[in-house]
Amino acid sequence: MTVTKIALVGIGKIARDQHVPALAASDAFELAATVSRSGGLEGVENYGTIEALLEARPDISAISFCTPPQVRYDGARAALAAGRHVMLEKPPGASLSEVHALQAQAAAANLSLYATWHSRHAASVPAARAWLADKTIKSVRIDWKEDVRVWHPGQQWIWQAGGLGIFDPVINALSILTEILPVPVYVTGADLRFPSNCETPISGRIQMGGPDGPLVESDVDFLFEGEPLWRHVVETDAGTLTLNEGGAVLDIDGTTPATNGAEEAKLHGEYDGLYAAFANLLATGSSEVDLRPMTLVADIFTLGRRLEAPEFIDPTLQEN
Amino acid sequence: MTVTKIALVGIGKIARDQHVPALAASDAFELAATVSRSGGLEGVENYGTIEALLEARPDISAISFCTPPQVRYDGARAALAAGRHVMLEKPPGASLSEVHALQAQAAAANLSLYATWHSRHAASVPAARAWLADKTIKSVRIDWKEDVRVWHPGQQWIWQAGGLGIFDPVINALSILTEILPVPVYVTGADLRFPSNCETPISGRIQMGGPDGPLVESDVDFLFEGEPLWRHVVETDAGTLTLNEGGAVLDIDGTTPATNGAEEAKLHGEYDGLYAAFANLLATGSSEVDLRPMTLVADIFTLGRRLEAPEFIDPTLQEN
Repeated sequence: MTVTKIALVGIGKIARDQHVPALAASDAFELAATVSRSGGLEGVENYGTIEALLEARPDISAISFCTPPQVRYDGARAALAAGRHVMLEKPPGASLSEVHALQAQAAAANLSLYATWHSRHAASVPAARAWLADKTIKSVRIDWKEDVRVWHPGQQWIWQAGGLGIFDPVINALSILTEILPVPVYVTGADLRFPSNCETPISGRIQMGGPDGPLVESDVDFLFEGEPLWRHVVETDAGTLTLNEGGAVLDIDGTTPATNGAEEAKLHGEYDGLYAAFANLLATGSSEVDLRPMTLVADIFTLGRRLEAPEFIDPTLQEN
Repeated sequence: MTVTKIALVGIGKIARDQHVPALAASDAFELAATVSRSGGLEGVENYGTIEALLEARPDISAISFCTPPQVRYDGARAALAAGRHVMLEKPPGASLSEVHALQAQAAAANLSLYATWHSRHAASVPAARAWLADKTIKSVRIDWKEDVRVWHPGQQWIWQAGGLGIFDPVINALSILTEILPVPVYVTGADLRFPSNCETPISGRIQMGGPDGPLVESDVDFLFEGEPLWRHVVETDAGTLTLNEGGAVLDIDGTTPATNGAEEAKLHGEYDGLYAAFANLLATGSSEVDLRPMTLVADIFTLGRRLEAPEFIDPTLQEN
């Protein structure tokens, strides 16, 4: 198997928790360098800027970005301009229009661009999709509730314009929704609660329609304490499908199919799946950019009603 | 020439000011009926609902929607389901995802769907596009300032979620921008001012990037008194192009090219152009749905910073 040298840009929580272990386990990629201003990884060459990396390492043909979405475009553009294939953490950018620009650039240069949605690689998402394929969907209920203080400690970019707030995790739910439903959905309404000191919402309710009228109701909350609730419940003409734990655990009318992954798959399987898919895109010279989850979020921001929520103070930052 | 019977849905200000005169002047269409709950037009059959029209008039093969964007989807979906071609006022819907759903529906049924951008048919837009085609764009400045009390009296839907506020007219500027520029642009930042009693913004500033960094600055205001300012100024390597009066009047380095339309073209030419384009789509069995202006607006709402503005009271409604 050809091993592709890859660089990782942005060595924060998601890089350390997910990308680095997935790359260590991958036969297709070798983590050859990192880009980080605040220091890289033990034993891996680090550059302070993407420009320095592109200049020094023409042997690295693929670059994976896990920087915050607000600063991803400039790096991705530079990487494509230097002839490198690009993989993007979710969401693939701060705006739909900048991802369209990257798509055009990658296509013109015959390079692979991969906009990843890690939750689509959760253990039970393929089985859910397969089961729903021939069912009539009667309603969908999504609850996406977690404690931002536990899951995103100190990640201030989430609260800055373009950081999406609660919709940074909710876009995972929407990536699963658009993957498993056999019909298209569209946003009809939303109520969004913005803390008085933040530029992005902390909680909300969303309504979506489908081919025959109202179809999806969703309740999302970034201040939910205890065990997170990452759940899709799909009522169909043939029973109720429940996806729990962010796509990891499937239940159909109280029965758990044997397709569920092991604990290990729940932890690292999503990112193993992403890098395997990226290797496949490189091997076939193709791109994958599905903007449906991001389009739904943009629609929610465009037509959502804005309500005030109390000031949010991140206790992690308070301690500093 | 085949004359297509067409129905107009939503008999408000834009229908009376623009659609009805354009249809009266068209050889391609005959205005056969209207749909309006508050009464239609003198001498034209009116129906209270789109369903009643579709049921009673199978001979009407095309439907043009000028209802507010928040209620356009259900009607358009019903019209396509009944086998009719559909033309949509701008913006083509309240959300990108619902227009995607309509596109899929029209394609599956082999029907024409036309998402119109009337400002692209302003007298000098084609000449501006042609002149810019081979230029290097150095910067773009857009001012879009008008008095909502003069141009949208009593149109409360503009202030409701999904009505876009100032971005209802600004989307015209963006439809021109994406038509005339030879390079793609993407939103990098925005400041939006929301009146305390409205769900949509009343003014703002927007920044966009292009292939080589920052490219577009825009200042938009819905409380601008006196003559409206609807202007694009494009600095290029070969001089400065100015489009004034919403695309009607062109100026290149102080010279006004002879391509400018007459006063009459400024008033009704845009909608004449729309219906001519729709007739062409019907004749060729094709659709036209360019969502770039709407994508830029969705991006502006997604990553814009929200600021408070004073309460807005529409004096037209106060008098009632």
